[in-house]
Amino acid sequence: MTQIVPEGGAPAAAPPRRVMASDLPAHTGQQVTVAGWLHRKRLLKSVTFVIVRDRTGLVQVVLPADQAAAAGVADLPEETVLAVTGMVTASSQAPGGAEVTEPVLTMLSEPAQPPPFDLYRPAVTAGLPTVLDHAPTTLRHPLLRAGFEISAASVAGFRATLDANGFAEIQTPKIVRAATESGANVFSIDYFGQPAYLAQSPQFYKQAMVGVFERVYETGPVFRAEPHDTARHLAEYLSLDAEFGFIDDHRDVMAVLRDVFAGMVAAVRARARPAVERLRIKLPEVPEQIPELHFADAQRLIAAQAGWDPRGEPDLSPADERWLGDWVLREHGTEFLFITGYPMVKRPFYTHPDPDRPDFSRSFDLIFRGMELVTGGQRLHNHGDYLTALAARGEDPEPYAGYLQVFSHGMPPHGGFAIGLERWTARLTGAANVREVTLFPRDLHRLAP
Amino acid sequence: MTQIVPEGGAPAAAPPRRVMASDLPAHTGQQVTVAGWLHRKRLLKSVTFVIVRDRTGLVQVVLPADQAAAAGVADLPEETVLAVTGMVTASSQAPGGAEVTEPVLTMLSEPAQPPPFDLYRPAVTAGLPTVLDHAPTTLRHPLLRAGFEISAASVAGFRATLDANGFAEIQTPKIVRAATESGANVFSIDYFGQPAYLAQSPQFYKQAMVGVFERVYETGPVFRAEPHDTARHLAEYLSLDAEFGFIDDHRDVMAVLRDVFAGMVAAVRARARPAVERLRIKLPEVPEQIPELHFADAQRLIAAQAGWDPRGEPDLSPADERWLGDWVLREHGTEFLFITGYPMVKRPFYTHPDPDRPDFSRSFDLIFRGMELVTGGQRLHNHGDYLTALAARGEDPEPYAGYLQVFSHGMPPHGGFAIGLERWTARLTGAANVREVTLFPRDLHRLAP
Repeated sequence: MTQIVPEGGAPAAAPPRRVMASDLPAHTGQQVTVAGWLHRKRLLKSVTFVIVRDRTGLVQVVLPADQAAAAGVADLPEETVLAVTGMVTASSQAPGGAEVTEPVLTMLSEPAQPPPFDLYRPAVTAGLPTVLDHAPTTLRHPLLRAGFEISAASVAGFRATLDANGFAEIQTPKIVRAATESGANVFSIDYFGQPAYLAQSPQFYKQAMVGVFERVYETGPVFRAEPHDTARHLAEYLSLDAEFGFIDDHRDVMAVLRDVFAGMVAAVRARARPAVERLRIKLPEVPEQIPELHFADAQRLIAAQAGWDPRGEPDLSPADERWLGDWVLREHGTEFLFITGYPMVKRPFYTHPDPDRPDFSRSFDLIFRGMELVTGGQRLHNHGDYLTALAARGEDPEPYAGYLQVFSHGMPPHGGFAIGLERWTARLTGAANVREVTLFPRDLHRLAP
Repeated sequence: MTQIVPEGGAPAAAPPRRVMASDLPAHTGQQVTVAGWLHRKRLLKSVTFVIVRDRTGLVQVVLPADQAAAAGVADLPEETVLAVTGMVTASSQAPGGAEVTEPVLTMLSEPAQPPPFDLYRPAVTAGLPTVLDHAPTTLRHPLLRAGFEISAASVAGFRATLDANGFAEIQTPKIVRAATESGANVFSIDYFGQPAYLAQSPQFYKQAMVGVFERVYETGPVFRAEPHDTARHLAEYLSLDAEFGFIDDHRDVMAVLRDVFAGMVAAVRARARPAVERLRIKLPEVPEQIPELHFADAQRLIAAQAGWDPRGEPDLSPADERWLGDWVLREHGTEFLFITGYPMVKRPFYTHPDPDRPDFSRSFDLIFRGMELVTGGQRLHNHGDYLTALAARGEDPEPYAGYLQVFSHGMPPHGGFAIGLERWTARLTGAANVREVTLFPRDLHRLAP
């Protein structure tokens, strides 16, 4: 006998333990409870299907049409939360090959209001502003949720790779007295009456902690009062930071970064397979040796083959990076490319110069699918070199005194990198805008939800 | 022939691969390189010992006194970073049973300035203000570093336990439009000309994400403009947050929390054993079933046995918690105790009442070693109940509109908890002040380093 039991009015007998949608076929012939959101109803002439969505997939619940009508299933709004107790029955036409029959439905929430667009349709039929304005509801759509499953797996892969390589996880403060990289683009806060800022990066702290743990990483938010309203800038994002000591030069950093990407891709493959399949994306192979080009050679190559001449520019343009992404795929069959030796003038003061060509640095960018995704390199490690570097830029060392202190107490040659999580996930999933893979993005115009 | 090679002047032949201190005995009879900080020198009549500290321990390097004198070892300041290439020789008196003989020393940093106190002494001979003012250097002391190794292992255990239970990791914004818990104790920021705040907790966001992923966790910073200058309050700390749906009541939340603590202790045991041994701490056993007392029963017990009468108070005092911590250890042989059913008047508006005793809640605190460490409970999940709860407190629902929206789109019964990482680590290590286990604490007076 089909019935809909209102919330709180469940029968006194304890229902069978909850089974997840993905496990349903293993319980064929048994009485089970499934629970989730009313994803879709299909009212046919003689039979009614109720599709319930849980975190692992969909369950098809079957009722004779007359019983469904008597129980008022037609009036039950999508997204209402239900528990369904019934018999698991093999069915070649149901998702996973099993469905629930002879059901008793219990409402676990009030009847739901309709979502901003139909979550049961295979495609997302709303634009990005609607998706973002109603994120708590719209992200329930399996295609929108998938990006975050890939994002979480990537973070897990980052940590697992570094854990296996002797790195220690650290937590550094997000409220700081001085801006990290430069005075621009910082958010100011009132800190008990004193001026303070939100950290633009954990750079200074992660370097200092190399002196304590040798090898450190952090997965934490960073903040940029970014005036650019683009598809790849956010005011707050998750930075996957690593820093470690006892290196010969930036190539040791590149080798660890290569292993980190291999670990991230492996973790996505292992932990987020349903999301990868749902989005129909092809995961990249990370080559044992990622090809690398010196900045000067990259510019020469572009000048010779691309139809424009970037030489003389101190940085690569987005067009340069796209061209190099195509080039490395064509010539080396990979989507990853290291550009090394960026000119010192475009790198922060803590960057280690190339001793053989002091205008160039021991730094690098990693280009993935034609876009810069990671910046890293070797840093200065002697106090005297910091003073020289700041003087050469005409900068007063006083505001950096707290940071510079550590370098007079013995610091090994060290370096590191920072990966922007949302950019990585966007490139991996093919999202055109980083906001699609950010739960609650923050930008020039968006502070809510 | 002993020599000290200045930085950059290393011999052209590639030195043997670096071996960590903890692996040294496995290389007895081999030529190796070790690298780290000059921890201590001992200049005896005929022999000089140079102790090198790396992230895994100490290495004893032995030089004949005349060679050490010729090379100027006596003038080498502690904390200078060195690489030492030499022969691994068995020695019953060296740490780990092996030492390095016939060494060539190479300086990897400038000669170091002396640290604020002698890092090679077994005890910490500086007070907390000195330790915190010079944290990048002082935390190199093995006893001070140990707390952070335990802290990192705890976070890893938190994540591993929840990963194994179907939870998804999320990243929620730290810049928010409205305060979470109340208007008090928030830091204000200027957000592109708009007023905004730093998140006091991810509460609203983690609840919303139960609608997407069912089970979520986050390990991220939270911010409280805490006017209290105590040993257990910080302006910024790491919150280990979990929230999940399809629960019967708060006891399902308590069961997951129990497993999380068991996982955290197991991770500390497995990943931070040297730190546990260095601090000589006894890790707690987490019982299969943590004892629980209803708030009203706890007050009755205290009134009957403790010598004071807390009945009528809407919350437990620190003295009450200490007494209950002693009681549960005495009566149940455990250091963990759940207090359930706190009065609704002391809990936030989103707290689910006890249907049988509506003045009490389906919430709990976990007391560990006599101090409240975790707060959690079941939350309301119907939109109508939120409106009723806010009205009963005389609060305008308008500022909460963005938060309340999700509850009209179908939310399952859910609950969760938040663990303050620094408090946990402090209780576990016996630190008297949470600042001892916070890399760079932020409080009323401290914004640097």
